[in-house]
Amino acid sequence: MDQVKIFSPASVANVSCGFDVLGFCLDSIGDIMVVHKTATPGVVIGSVTGEDVPIDPNKNVASIAVKALLEEHKTDFGFRIDIDKKIKPGSGIGSSASSAAGAVFAVNELLGRPYSRRELVRFALAGEAMASGAAHADNLAPVLLGGFTLVRSNASLDIVKLPCPSELVATIIHPKIELKTIHSRAILKKEISLKSAVEQWGNLGAFVSSLYTSDYELLSRSMKDKVIEPLRAMLIPKFDEMKEAALQTGALGSGISGSGPSVFALSKGAATANKVGEAMKKIYDSIGLDHDIHISPINETGIKIL
Amino acid sequence: MDQVKIFSPASVANVSCGFDVLGFCLDSIGDIMVVHKTATPGVVIGSVTGEDVPIDPNKNVASIAVKALLEEHKTDFGFRIDIDKKIKPGSGIGSSASSAAGAVFAVNELLGRPYSRRELVRFALAGEAMASGAAHADNLAPVLLGGFTLVRSNASLDIVKLPCPSELVATIIHPKIELKTIHSRAILKKEISLKSAVEQWGNLGAFVSSLYTSDYELLSRSMKDKVIEPLRAMLIPKFDEMKEAALQTGALGSGISGSGPSVFALSKGAATANKVGEAMKKIYDSIGLDHDIHISPINETGIKIL
Repeated sequence: MDQVKIFSPASVANVSCGFDVLGFCLDSIGDIMVVHKTATPGVVIGSVTGEDVPIDPNKNVASIAVKALLEEHKTDFGFRIDIDKKIKPGSGIGSSASSAAGAVFAVNELLGRPYSRRELVRFALAGEAMASGAAHADNLAPVLLGGFTLVRSNASLDIVKLPCPSELVATIIHPKIELKTIHSRAILKKEISLKSAVEQWGNLGAFVSSLYTSDYELLSRSMKDKVIEPLRAMLIPKFDEMKEAALQTGALGSGISGSGPSVFALSKGAATANKVGEAMKKIYDSIGLDHDIHISPINETGIKIL
Repeated sequence: MDQVKIFSPASVANVSCGFDVLGFCLDSIGDIMVVHKTATPGVVIGSVTGEDVPIDPNKNVASIAVKALLEEHKTDFGFRIDIDKKIKPGSGIGSSASSAAGAVFAVNELLGRPYSRRELVRFALAGEAMASGAAHADNLAPVLLGGFTLVRSNASLDIVKLPCPSELVATIIHPKIELKTIHSRAILKKEISLKSAVEQWGNLGAFVSSLYTSDYELLSRSMKDKVIEPLRAMLIPKFDEMKEAALQTGALGSGISGSGPSVFALSKGAATANKVGEAMKKIYDSIGLDHDIHISPINETGIKIL
């Protein structure tokens, strides 16, 4: 096999109660990447279409991630990566994670799969580190493993794949303003109250339980964030109204996707997820703010070979 | 039915990663309570044996909890509670929770079960509030529901019963010094670092997952506490040595039981749990500190009628 074409999906990190640890994988939006073997060792970016990301292999997260892999797994040939970038950088749905994870996944396929999907996380993390200023696996893990994932420890990359209730459907709305993770991270406080921390881990524990038992009501009650959302909400136009509209329309929960500015909601069933999208859209239409909407089931597989 | 005799078990709250939300129920130690119907409305404490707790019904957590229940469920008769107190107050294994939960459970039986075990938590909480200075359901929930429980929200008493891997066995060592919850709570800080909070909720999420999948290794890796344990460890003689001895002997994890001074460990299988107990005992024997040791499987049922 000399080339492989893949779909590398977008993802939602944090999921209200799981800041820096929880994430899930989307299915209706993702980058298309084609990776070819080349005679010359090393890695190059052949072409980038769709969105504007660096073609310099020392600045592109995809090639940086592949370089990390090739440092451990030496080859006497190289790779060329062509990226059709569908996920907007800075949109809050794991644009850099998609590139980094997709690239190492594709290269691993061309190498005959020396690494498991789980093992690929640490190489992809090298790419993410450059993009977000801090290396977190909360987007990478769901992109590579699919479904919901929990990063127990980012330091040791101890990742738990969680089950996914079958009727969950995500709604994502992306207001077309760019928000860099590095900036939305700067707004956070280094200390939080013990009281709100206890509420947060109570909610996360219950959320994890709800995934195992498909208890949609518990899942809904657990989707709370009193720690991060109150600080970041101001960075997102009309956040409070968007969230309220989602909940009023029947969403189980709604919050900031990753570090924003995208807003996500989770609903039981596609019909509700679509209505939630319409309600959110109405708010941005009313102020003339350009936006994208994605309705997506949870992608249980993660990256797919096309 | 005019009288009922029950076993109201001890419990372990916090369980390292779940401060104020997580708890599990013990089986080998608990109070024995007998509750009789009486002609005179109201509630009295008939006798207390074993440990020294107040006989004044306005000061005893058992009668205070029953009064909370009877405020909502009026009766033209009353109750007398006889308590054989086996759990030492201030030992850190839910002494007041056992009394409060046991009393409302027994009264509920004599009333023909108007309330579910889950509904009884809020009455028992009234008793707990007096004993610990702050009303938390993290001991009450496992005593009433059995097994492992998670209090998602203490304010709304949203309680999740979690599954329990079948081979888990607890070791508890109680150094005979009294430590009041109100004092071990005063030592805590009102603010914690976001970094350690993220680690804590990553661990709690993984711990909950490990209970569903009986993944003992993940359970072991998740039993960490960088938030509360470092502050409270100094209140417990030889805590660090005890914990190290437990882990070296094969325990999956070890930490402070509730607010201490008891130290608990969880092991896979009774043989290891016994060895862990011996290793802990040796440390207290070496300094001549009197102590009790309990080896107990997880009590999946909670309070039992005898």
